[in-house]
Amino acid sequence: MKNTFGTNVTLTLFGESHGSEIGAVLDGLAPGLPVDEAFIASQLDLRRSIGAISTARHEKDEFRIVSGVFNGRTTGTPLCILIPNTDVQSADYADVTCVPRPGHADYTSAVKYGGFNDYRGGGHASGRLTAPLVAAGAILLSALRTKEILIGTHISRLAGIDDAPLTPSEEEIRQLGTRPFAVLSDAAGEKMRAAIEEAATDGDSVGGVLETAVFGLPAGLGEPWFDSVEGLLAHAIFSIPGVKGVSFGDGFDIAERSGSEANDAFARVGDRIVTKTNHSGGIQGGITNGMPLTFRTAVKPTPSIAKTQKTLDFSSGEETDLSVSGRHDPAIVHRARVVVDSVTALVLADLLSGRFGTDWLREG
Amino acid sequence: MKNTFGTNVTLTLFGESHGSEIGAVLDGLAPGLPVDEAFIASQLDLRRSIGAISTARHEKDEFRIVSGVFNGRTTGTPLCILIPNTDVQSADYADVTCVPRPGHADYTSAVKYGGFNDYRGGGHASGRLTAPLVAAGAILLSALRTKEILIGTHISRLAGIDDAPLTPSEEEIRQLGTRPFAVLSDAAGEKMRAAIEEAATDGDSVGGVLETAVFGLPAGLGEPWFDSVEGLLAHAIFSIPGVKGVSFGDGFDIAERSGSEANDAFARVGDRIVTKTNHSGGIQGGITNGMPLTFRTAVKPTPSIAKTQKTLDFSSGEETDLSVSGRHDPAIVHRARVVVDSVTALVLADLLSGRFGTDWLREG
Amino acid sequence: MKNTFGTNVTLTLFGESHGSEIGAVLDGLAPGLPVDEAFIASQLDLRRSIGAISTARHEKDEFRIVSGVFNGRTTGTPLCILIPNTDVQSADYADVTCVPRPGHADYTSAVKYGGFNDYRGGGHASGRLTAPLVAAGAILLSALRTKEILIGTHISRLAGIDDAPLTPSEEEIRQLGTRPFAVLSDAAGEKMRAAIEEAATDGDSVGGVLETAVFGLPAGLGEPWFDSVEGLLAHAIFSIPGVKGVSFGDGFDIAERSGSEANDAFARVGDRIVTKTNHSGGIQGGITNGMPLTFRTAVKPTPSIAKTQKTLDFSSGEETDLSVSGRHDPAIVHRARVVVDSVTALVLADLLSGRFGTDWLREG
Amino acid sequence: MKNTFGTNVTLTLFGESHGSEIGAVLDGLAPGLPVDEAFIASQLDLRRSIGAISTARHEKDEFRIVSGVFNGRTTGTPLCILIPNTDVQSADYADVTCVPRPGHADYTSAVKYGGFNDYRGGGHASGRLTAPLVAAGAILLSALRTKEILIGTHISRLAGIDDAPLTPSEEEIRQLGTRPFAVLSDAAGEKMRAAIEEAATDGDSVGGVLETAVFGLPAGLGEPWFDSVEGLLAHAIFSIPGVKGVSFGDGFDIAERSGSEANDAFARVGDRIVTKTNHSGGIQGGITNGMPLTFRTAVKPTPSIAKTQKTLDFSSGEETDLSVSGRHDPAIVHRARVVVDSVTALVLADLLSGRFGTDWLREG
Repeated sequence: MKNTFGTNVTLTLFGESHGSEIGAVLDGLAPGLPVDEAFIASQLDLRRSIGAISTARHEKDEFRIVSGVFNGRTTGTPLCILIPNTDVQSADYADVTCVPRPGHADYTSAVKYGGFNDYRGGGHASGRLTAPLVAAGAILLSALRTKEILIGTHISRLAGIDDAPLTPSEEEIRQLGTRPFAVLSDAAGEKMRAAIEEAATDGDSVGGVLETAVFGLPAGLGEPWFDSVEGLLAHAIFSIPGVKGVSFGDGFDIAERSGSEANDAFARVGDRIVTKTNHSGGIQGGITNGMPLTFRTAVKPTPSIAKTQKTLDFSSGEETDLSVSGRHDPAIVHRARVVVDSVTALVLADLLSGRFGTDWLREG
Repeated sequence: MKNTFGTNVTLTLFGESHGSEIGAVLDGLAPGLPVDEAFIASQLDLRRSIGAISTARHEKDEFRIVSGVFNGRTTGTPLCILIPNTDVQSADYADVTCVPRPGHADYTSAVKYGGFNDYRGGGHASGRLTAPLVAAGAILLSALRTKEILIGTHISRLAGIDDAPLTPSEEEIRQLGTRPFAVLSDAAGEKMRAAIEEAATDGDSVGGVLETAVFGLPAGLGEPWFDSVEGLLAHAIFSIPGVKGVSFGDGFDIAERSGSEANDAFARVGDRIVTKTNHSGGIQGGITNGMPLTFRTAVKPTPSIAKTQKTLDFSSGEETDLSVSGRHDPAIVHRARVVVDSVTALVLADLLSGRFGTDWLREG
Repeated sequence: MKNTFGTNVTLTLFGESHGSEIGAVLDGLAPGLPVDEAFIASQLDLRRSIGAISTARHEKDEFRIVSGVFNGRTTGTPLCILIPNTDVQSADYADVTCVPRPGHADYTSAVKYGGFNDYRGGGHASGRLTAPLVAAGAILLSALRTKEILIGTHISRLAGIDDAPLTPSEEEIRQLGTRPFAVLSDAAGEKMRAAIEEAATDGDSVGGVLETAVFGLPAGLGEPWFDSVEGLLAHAIFSIPGVKGVSFGDGFDIAERSGSEANDAFARVGDRIVTKTNHSGGIQGGITNGMPLTFRTAVKPTPSIAKTQKTLDFSSGEETDLSVSGRHDPAIVHRARVVVDSVTALVLADLLSGRFGTDWLREG
Repeated sequence: MKNTFGTNVTLTLFGESHGSEIGAVLDGLAPGLPVDEAFIASQLDLRRSIGAISTARHEKDEFRIVSGVFNGRTTGTPLCILIPNTDVQSADYADVTCVPRPGHADYTSAVKYGGFNDYRGGGHASGRLTAPLVAAGAILLSALRTKEILIGTHISRLAGIDDAPLTPSEEEIRQLGTRPFAVLSDAAGEKMRAAIEEAATDGDSVGGVLETAVFGLPAGLGEPWFDSVEGLLAHAIFSIPGVKGVSFGDGFDIAERSGSEANDAFARVGDRIVTKTNHSGGIQGGITNGMPLTFRTAVKPTPSIAKTQKTLDFSSGEETDLSVSGRHDPAIVHRARVVVDSVTALVLADLLSGRFGTDWLREG
């Protein structure tokens, strides 16, 4: 289904980095959900730049909802969000078809689209497309919150620096949502920012790992084959530019454990069934167990670097040196986390709407 | 779409561990593909037990193709494979609804299906369902091979023991396909087997990491949003019971690198465009670049262990001790690899058929 | 999605007329639905022959449910039904690739499948495949009935003979379900049967029109774009071999009316909102309005006739005479009606499960 | 999938009659297709009003393509078309939630969307949404034409007046595309226009039947289950507001024939396999046979009429008289034909791209 994700709640993305507008169509929404434009704007702000450590491309991300909302609430029909591209400097990108940037989709897009793609600024593959994704996700995050389902992500590791571990508590999750640079430990956050600035100074970039927790999901969501919660989330999250790994619960570390160390014992706390540990990240057999859903996302260092790299010049057929000019982030990890939250909201809203019906997200 | 995966080539799984038969429907196949029943049988053998280190459940996995094949070739209509369950000892599993096994889908299935699921032996969530998946995958692996597309997986790490690194070369990939215990280093393989046997002696189990490489894929497969090669593969691979992580290329390690270390420089070798390194695992922007596709899959230790664990007895509401009796694997990593190969073949056959048309897999 | 229909409740068909078995996988069912095997058998009987007016192919249609049912109820996992082909006389069909039968899919299948299809008896395109469809539909019809949703079809017209008009009343719908030859007027029924027998005597065949009514659907089902109730039903019903037209409410006759004659005025009867007439067939803007859903299905005369026809002999490239031997129905209209009911149940179960959630069909 | 149609080539519609913009996202297009904006504009003109016989809502339908086109050609990424709503007089529609118009989706939408829908002018269910559908369809019609696949529709019958029969010849099909009022017989066309004007004078409306032919389709397109060419086309065409019937070839008339009259004999004309007649409309077993594809679409009379009708006033719970004011068409048949052509192009482009690959529409 290409640029559409989801079964009952679906998101379609369109647009190119240097086109007039980019946008998203969100379909299958329960009618009657409040649409909080201020919250959408604040989520878009989180996706954007933070002073020295982010790209100098400063777009206001003024969005326009052109359908699917009436009197401040969703109508249940497709909701289209448009975001104009206002701060476009296409000259910076003029030669990427001829001299593809390493680590970017310049070469693969040229092959896939037979050279007809809009190559400017990465075109349709640009991280810029995450803006409408975040705007759409904000509506879903709001809706999930009214059902006491909370999603939060922190920068677990960046440039070799670890944040404090996510406990996770609801309190922590709520706080993370408001932090521009989402860490639990301020000290770790300062070191990370310093590492980003250092990379920028070197004309280089750094990567990192995000960790996400979701509270309040009912048990019994997901399928053993093939629409496991892990599978659906991973499918969507691997769309986020730069993501190279997704793992749940203990993830790759669980492969180091014995069964007796990795299994989560069931217990009862009051009326609730819980597990004493959460190595599985709240999922067994692809289905939620009612514990917090936890997962980690590996984000590669930004491929656009000023440092000289080798690439091919397709006009001459010879290898050439390349220094990527233009405005680029020395890291995208901190910006990617709101995209991860948004994508997570999409997958969960889809699963919940499929399980409990189209109107469930609104129902009292 | 629940128990169906794929868009142009689709696989539907059905059955329960202790039902009369389990099976798969493979649809969207090119007509005219040879169906090599001996190869299917050999792949099913790879999925099954290897002496002391695998489950004592010994099923011959006699499969029957009841549709979609005529005169030894695919017809282009749905191909249904049935595998009877012949060696079923249901008594072993009688109490899992009441006393759910930690790490299994007993509890989550009971919630999801309202207690109506066939709980015996894990029911529909059982790893037993990978048998028809492997049988179907064998047909696709054969078809891909005629197009010079090769898929191979080794046990990269098990119980803390590393195999030799996958180079990867075509030679290696071809060899891996024939090894019952798929390692590159015999010495590492012996240590791994010893570790599995030791875990068995302890009534415990071990996990590991598989690494897969695919040769011969054309550049230009996959979508930036949302059907990236990474997203589609991860979606399908997370269905395999016990998988908790999927990563591409350098995976989580890429987050430790700088951009200048992580980018893959383009170069030319004769007529071919290559990258000098392959940190990205053959994918940029969700699209193949013609280099080997590489990814890693984290498999947790088998949750069924003889060692005493804590769980809940739903009849009394009290915590209780549980020692899982019955026949179980002290490790599933070595068996999971042929499942990974099969799932990979499904995803790639689907992508290739979508890209080049329904008949491409047969065409000269 | 080829041989799979549906979004939340899905049906996958597989098999060939002369293979060992044909079957269906029904997925997305609510767990806990009773499975009444006697009712399934009786529906399969309705699909089969009635003495002189139907094909001499007499299969018992012994079905086997191999998955998805436990202790007499659905588990919520894929339900696979197998029906063996026991009364196969392949010799009758040996030359259809070379000399395609007019009105059949012999030629179109040969082109589509590149000559690799199993041509015997129509192969995968055979009306025989409606048997598993009817078996699966029976489970859904039972489930809908417990929710007071009733589906019934009569032979509105056959060989130029009209049945009495469908009022429709619930009483009528309930009665139609039990009649082997589904007419409201016994006199009309006798004339129709006589016409069928006469066609048989002539080595010819007759067609007709079915009319279906559904009671008890809630208002608000369906989408304006593109998954209208009309669109989904038509999509599925056009799969039934021989169907060449589908219309809703007044159908093609509505094109003869003025707006003031065609509009259905709203009124109130007690607490219920109704329309005084039902020209629209219970659907406005693609969405149900709570009135009976009504539609008509045009079924062509059976293409297999003993009368001599012209066709091509592909071996010589010359025109040739053909008299279709073997066992064939002089009409399929009366047999198609239970297929229409089954397909209707599938579409409605899918819509209802999407609207109200996966478990709605079971819920009190 | 609600507001998205298609598998390999997909169309998503969004917008409301009185929102700021309506639009469509067309995805899965071959890269490199020329985009002829003048042809899009001319198709939009065909959809709009013709003097006295169409609605007085005069929008210029100025469209904007905001993505997926670069240097005048498709990029292969999602193509979004926006059309502003400029001539909106919302006051005309203020009371439809309270006093639903017979024959409209006012009541069914209110139920479906829980009263949250934008009811003005029919909201999302408005025929206005066919404008972006026609704009998107124009791009596909152009692409199909370069492959010698021609689609044409005439008004076969309107208000009881028959047009001359569609032969069909390629010449006829090409001519129909350019006629604002698409009839073959000028005399019939004049009578039809007179009937429309008469209905307008009476405050009433008329319906009709469209007939479509497609030339140049290869044999072998479509599936026996469930994605027959008939099923896919009907699914999409029933989305067009006011459509109540779809039939192929002889349609409902075929039910009146005997098998010997209805079967199409195969013959050879030079190198081509043809059928001597075309009762089946170019489709057997759901699959194209290479003959012209023909089908008929029943369009009901416009439900908006000035004549007094009965309806319910939901505020009082009482029946009330209603005369629909505002600007309305006394017939939509002549405007619907370009929508039918567009929808047909979508279905065929989807089928062809699935069969022959993503780039086929561009390939030489």
